[in-house]
Amino acid sequence: MRTVDASSQDWTQIWPILRHVAAAGDTYCWPRDITEDQARALWMLPPPNLTLVLRDEAGAVVGTATLHPNHDGPGAHVANASFAVAPRCRGRGVGRRLAEDTLDRARVEGYRAMQFNAVVEANTGAVALWKSLGFHVLATVPEAFLHPTAGYVGLHIMHRAL
Amino acid sequence: MRTVDASSQDWTQIWPILRHVAAAGDTYCWPRDITEDQARALWMLPPPNLTLVLRDEAGAVVGTATLHPNHDGPGAHVANASFAVAPRCRGRGVGRRLAEDTLDRARVEGYRAMQFNAVVEANTGAVALWKSLGFHVLATVPEAFLHPTAGYVGLHIMHRAL
Repeated sequence: MRTVDASSQDWTQIWPILRHVAAAGDTYCWPRDITEDQARALWMLPPPNLTLVLRDEAGAVVGTATLHPNHDGPGAHVANASFAVAPRCRGRGVGRRLAEDTLDRARVEGYRAMQFNAVVEANTGAVALWKSLGFHVLATVPEAFLHPTAGYVGLHIMHRAL
Repeated sequence: MRTVDASSQDWTQIWPILRHVAAAGDTYCWPRDITEDQARALWMLPPPNLTLVLRDEAGAVVGTATLHPNHDGPGAHVANASFAVAPRCRGRGVGRRLAEDTLDRARVEGYRAMQFNAVVEANTGAVALWKSLGFHVLATVPEAFLHPTAGYVGLHIMHRAL
């Protein structure tokens, strides 16, 4: 597996992954019925945003990430990143590999820290992964996410220095 | 004084306020040399974003605010807001009035809470104002803001239920 910069041609493989994540409604702060144009506008942004894809040995996209400043101007030295893994590839270490590669890339790009603004507290797998990668919960915004089965749950703000 | 929805004609009075705030570089996560087009794109957004102006008795814009969902989709019930006050009007209660009116408007719009993502901890006047209006500091992101004189300072994430 190898993480590389996405090309515009990769979008046809990225979009089904993001559509699935959005439709599930349990991890992303996106409309569940987000359109392809809306998703592309959020994911395939120009620099300083970077869009990454993790390819398997056959070259297929098994995961994707975006990496960009969490804030602009005097806050642009803290990165934010988002991740999505193809449903068929879950439980195979794809998310961890993609996250590790994205952390490395953030260091290369000169970021001093990485911050997540909206980790659904009910998404225990993701929370455990981020903690294992050195992130800690700075705060939990109470009832900030309307989960499809659990109702209002908190959103963790997670952070680590780079 | 009266807070109302901004019209596109108000931009000519809003822009000098925002340009001044950005150029100071000590409160906003915007480029200090932000262009008018960039600022307009950030401030005068279509619904569900709302742009508000506080007018004095003569009708002049003395402050402005934006009010919009802090996240989209399952997170869209928590508001985020930004505020700017004309330099010549500081210390006259304009910020407090604008904030109170924006909190009222957020309730009318059905938001359940309001969250600020980036309150510069060195901006003690703003921090005190938000606390007096019922906000509390959920967390402080360490060294997340490069202040022009104080160096790296924290960004408070502040929150209150509505």
